[in-house]
Amino acid sequence: MRYFEDFHPGEVFDCGSRVVTKEEIITFAKQFDPQSFHVDEAAAARSHFGGLVASGWHSGSIAMGMVATALLLDSSCMGSPGMERLRWLKPLRGGETVNVKFRILESELSKTRPDRGKLKVSLELYDKAGNLLMDAIATQFYGLRPK
Amino acid sequence: MRYFEDFHPGEVFDCGSRVVTKEEIITFAKQFDPQSFHVDEAAAARSHFGGLVASGWHSGSIAMGMVATALLLDSSCMGSPGMERLRWLKPLRGGETVNVKFRILESELSKTRPDRGKLKVSLELYDKAGNLLMDAIATQFYGLRPK
Repeated sequence: MRYFEDFHPGEVFDCGSRVVTKEEIITFAKQFDPQSFHVDEAAAARSHFGGLVASGWHSGSIAMGMVATALLLDSSCMGSPGMERLRWLKPLRGGETVNVKFRILESELSKTRPDRGKLKVSLELYDKAGNLLMDAIATQFYGLRPK
Repeated sequence: MRYFEDFHPGEVFDCGSRVVTKEEIITFAKQFDPQSFHVDEAAAARSHFGGLVASGWHSGSIAMGMVATALLLDSSCMGSPGMERLRWLKPLRGGETVNVKFRILESELSKTRPDRGKLKVSLELYDKAGNLLMDAIATQFYGLRPK
């Protein structure tokens, strides 16, 4: 079990890789972001994207899921008050194998809550060739190791 | 059909309301953010949240879907390069009726692409009592009205 004290600025956690299918891109987008370039292959081919691309909320959710499974479920993570920046740099297309990295940027004890600390982290989604598709700089709270 | 020129700073679009159920919170989180306070009612009740709360990625995806359906599907929206800030201010819990507002903050023609313009927008998720649960300041590109 990893607590606040167990994360250190500069650490990078590799959260593994997985294939994202065209079918799951369409399924997500039909529910949460039904713009034509996310749900309709023919319309997407005619768009400036030149083909179907994942909703940015889907890319972020995929990255979140991989960090949660690889790292957060066995940690004292207490959630996040927000992100100070998110970039969608390159589109995510069906059939891509994505890799997620989780980078610790800053660490600080809470000034108001003695039971927790605050991490600034970078959530990064890469394609198989190593291109950065998305990154997000977020704050997260973690419980301190029990005394 | 709404083009870049049809959006003006200061405009606020009400994108409607809908109920978010506990079941959909759990279904989303099992796939994308299986932290215990998003998927396990008993564990969530013991957590600092005091009950089950939606993944922040789910809140954002719900808001995105409501803006897309209410507004973007009938617009020249070309997607987003990112967000400069996102805040999860209050947790979203099952049974809540959420309302989404979409606010135009800034409008600027693209300096490099003569076919499009750039909007800075605020995507806002409220509960039934009118409390702001989440907001995100994003950039979006829109096609110009054809000459």
